[in-house]
Amino acid sequence: MEYEELQELTEKTLELLTAKNFREIKALINDLQPQDSALLLEELNEKDILPVFRLLSKENAAETFVEMSYDSQELLLNTFSDAELKAVFDEMFLDDTVDIIEEMPANVVKRIIKQSDAETRNMINEILKYPKDSAGTIMTVEYVSLRKNMTVQECFNRIRQVAVDKETIYNCYVTDDKRKLIGTVTVKDLLLHEYETPISEFMETDVISVEATDDKEFAAQQISKYDLSALPVVDSENRMVGIVTVDDVLDVMEQEATEDISIMAAVTPSTDTYMEQSVWQIWKNRIPWLLILMISATFTGLIINKFEGNLNALSPLLFACIPMLMDTGGNAGSQASVTVIRGLALDEIRPRDALKVLWKELRVSAMLAACLAVVCFGKLYLLDGLAFGYDYTWYICLAVSLSLFATVVLAKTVGCLMPLLAKACRLDPAVVASPFITTIVDALSLIIFCLISMAILPPFLAAA
Amino acid sequence: MEYEELQELTEKTLELLTAKNFREIKALINDLQPQDSALLLEELNEKDILPVFRLLSKENAAETFVEMSYDSQELLLNTFSDAELKAVFDEMFLDDTVDIIEEMPANVVKRIIKQSDAETRNMINEILKYPKDSAGTIMTVEYVSLRKNMTVQECFNRIRQVAVDKETIYNCYVTDDKRKLIGTVTVKDLLLHEYETPISEFMETDVISVEATDDKEFAAQQISKYDLSALPVVDSENRMVGIVTVDDVLDVMEQEATEDISIMAAVTPSTDTYMEQSVWQIWKNRIPWLLILMISATFTGLIINKFEGNLNALSPLLFACIPMLMDTGGNAGSQASVTVIRGLALDEIRPRDALKVLWKELRVSAMLAACLAVVCFGKLYLLDGLAFGYDYTWYICLAVSLSLFATVVLAKTVGCLMPLLAKACRLDPAVVASPFITTIVDALSLIIFCLISMAILPPFLAAA
Repeated sequence: MEYEELQELTEKTLELLTAKNFREIKALINDLQPQDSALLLEELNEKDILPVFRLLSKENAAETFVEMSYDSQELLLNTFSDAELKAVFDEMFLDDTVDIIEEMPANVVKRIIKQSDAETRNMINEILKYPKDSAGTIMTVEYVSLRKNMTVQECFNRIRQVAVDKETIYNCYVTDDKRKLIGTVTVKDLLLHEYETPISEFMETDVISVEATDDKEFAAQQISKYDLSALPVVDSENRMVGIVTVDDVLDVMEQEATEDISIMAAVTPSTDTYMEQSVWQIWKNRIPWLLILMISATFTGLIINKFEGNLNALSPLLFACIPMLMDTGGNAGSQASVTVIRGLALDEIRPRDALKVLWKELRVSAMLAACLAVVCFGKLYLLDGLAFGYDYTWYICLAVSLSLFATVVLAKTVGCLMPLLAKACRLDPAVVASPFITTIVDALSLIIFCLISMAILPPFLAAA
Repeated sequence: MEYEELQELTEKTLELLTAKNFREIKALINDLQPQDSALLLEELNEKDILPVFRLLSKENAAETFVEMSYDSQELLLNTFSDAELKAVFDEMFLDDTVDIIEEMPANVVKRIIKQSDAETRNMINEILKYPKDSAGTIMTVEYVSLRKNMTVQECFNRIRQVAVDKETIYNCYVTDDKRKLIGTVTVKDLLLHEYETPISEFMETDVISVEATDDKEFAAQQISKYDLSALPVVDSENRMVGIVTVDDVLDVMEQEATEDISIMAAVTPSTDTYMEQSVWQIWKNRIPWLLILMISATFTGLIINKFEGNLNALSPLLFACIPMLMDTGGNAGSQASVTVIRGLALDEIRPRDALKVLWKELRVSAMLAACLAVVCFGKLYLLDGLAFGYDYTWYICLAVSLSLFATVVLAKTVGCLMPLLAKACRLDPAVVASPFITTIVDALSLIIFCLISMAILPPFLAAA
């Protein structure tokens, strides 16, 4: 649904609300996809949400509720009667229930758990026990399980019986009497075999599965790598405990990419969207990094203080080149570090590739640095020197260009090695992305610049 | 498959190759998942790949081939006989064929097209006509189509007939006699209804579809938003032309995130992985951005040249604060820009939110800036001044802290507005990420610093 369409629907709903024409609102809102009715509800005032939500059919109500933001869910949960709360959660798949429970404050969670039947309550508690970000927390326990002595016909009968309550029926899991996973059968396999064939004849026994305590990102990678639509989750003894479906994986992948991007930009990641976060939350996610980086950057200042006299004595024009040197070093370093960080995240680069990566970056950086140094020399000497009339003599330009060359090579080296080092130490490589590398490279490039200038310039100045 | 396992398998294969024990290699390699046999083949020498590849069964050969890197595919295609090439491509799904064709040089493409039958050739040509990055280029034409007067039993019969050749059978598409899409039916729906029910009674007529010329990223968003496992693709007259499946969408999402991350780090994105790219390719993807940014940064130098005399007269210590000011401004700007860019990519922020975003950033930045300015004042005055003995008087510290405050607020403002402006102008917001914003903020922060210092310091210096 486009934004314009949503605006129109919202206006129409508000008009109907004023006219108290609930019948038409009911027809209108029940006709939408749950994702769209959720968007429509979020456009309304707090006081209008509940009356409109009550017009949704039982099934639509649950599906719409799942698609709403955590804030709106909390608002609704606080105004629901116990019966309404029970009706919504009874229709929901267990993984969605767990998702919501994880985000709600304790008093709301208590009410939800109180309204569930004993079996659901047990399953919720089981799932809540898995470690944060593990496959167990995103799995659903509503899958179809079969026995290996069943025939195709018997399987179809079973699927027909249970299909309504299961999130996916196309992948079925064959377990033994100890609930151990021994094979998988797809509905496609079933359709391609005669009704009387026992499934043991064609079930896939080479099953790709993950353990419930594995990282959810690993589960996502397995689904993406092997093009699965669902992945069985087992315990440490290969007993089936649930499945992770591909739609959950899409969310995980989106979240992980957002997290990496946030960390690379020196922001603590948040599960809320930017528009949902309060000013205070955003401040909290940004201030620690800015402070750390600012304090580290002041040490660069100490380097300048130390060399200032010498540089000024050589030529005051040298100062003007410091921002260009620092920026180019920072950019060169972040190109390398971000590329390596993304490669590590996608498992295209591994820590054991460190030497190969280094060798590649050394060659690339030499080529880049040579090109930049030549252009920089030309720009300073011809444009700033001859055209603009600043006193950029050829030996000053040489000192700057040589420093630029060294800075770029060094920045690339630091930039590619730091994420690999972080990964090898089991830290998140994204943390050492551009801002941190920029700070390190800044200090190093200043030292290089001062040393090179002090080595090259004095003889020429003495001669002049 | 873990890396250690792969190493073991490779060694075993090499031993078996030396011993010419092809029977066992055949057993070993046909037992792997296609993704893993592809990895194994890529570990071998160029001359060993073809003999081992020939040991794969017909079906495994095609599936393994699809999973290999484009480089290895090209190598194999150049050594295949015509019959081998035909055998591999006959087993492949059409969308994979098109994927490969798009990456191969012209002479290889000619051979592939020559070996396909007339029908496949026509379908390939149809798909190749769609614009770059459109939904048409990632769709497959192998879907199950049904008619609305069919009964459940008739649908199952049809699915059983065609299932082997179709990429997904769980979502079926109901079309009229002009091939127009009028509804969808899932196998789950079919299983939940009696065999004699006509599907017109329960088919979903409110179908979410995309046009073949729509952006593939839009198709991915629809699948992700509505939790679909397949999305129908239609032409401008709502005639069914193909489907996009969720596994293709996983790849699109991963690619798009990688692309955005590359652009944000000022690297031209590439479809090859880092390890696959040559030094020359990497150089080409990085040098233009580094050059542009370096040249822009030299203009910051001109600002320093202009104010240098004044600053030096006020206090040489001021220079030492420039890197800290520039870095903090750059970091603050990139926090805001990267957050907004990601929000735009996920459709959580839209250009019309510009004022809301600006108002939020102004409040956040004022709070951040105040905190940083206080810490900066304290650090300079107490640590560098009193403890280290540099001559940081309180009015110098005040000038620096005020400049820092102004820089951070300005950086956040520029950082959040630039991506929104880019989006409104239909440019890729990622292009104006950190490096460009850093360059702009550097120049602005220097000007602010010089002006504030020149306004604050002279009266105190005169008094001293």
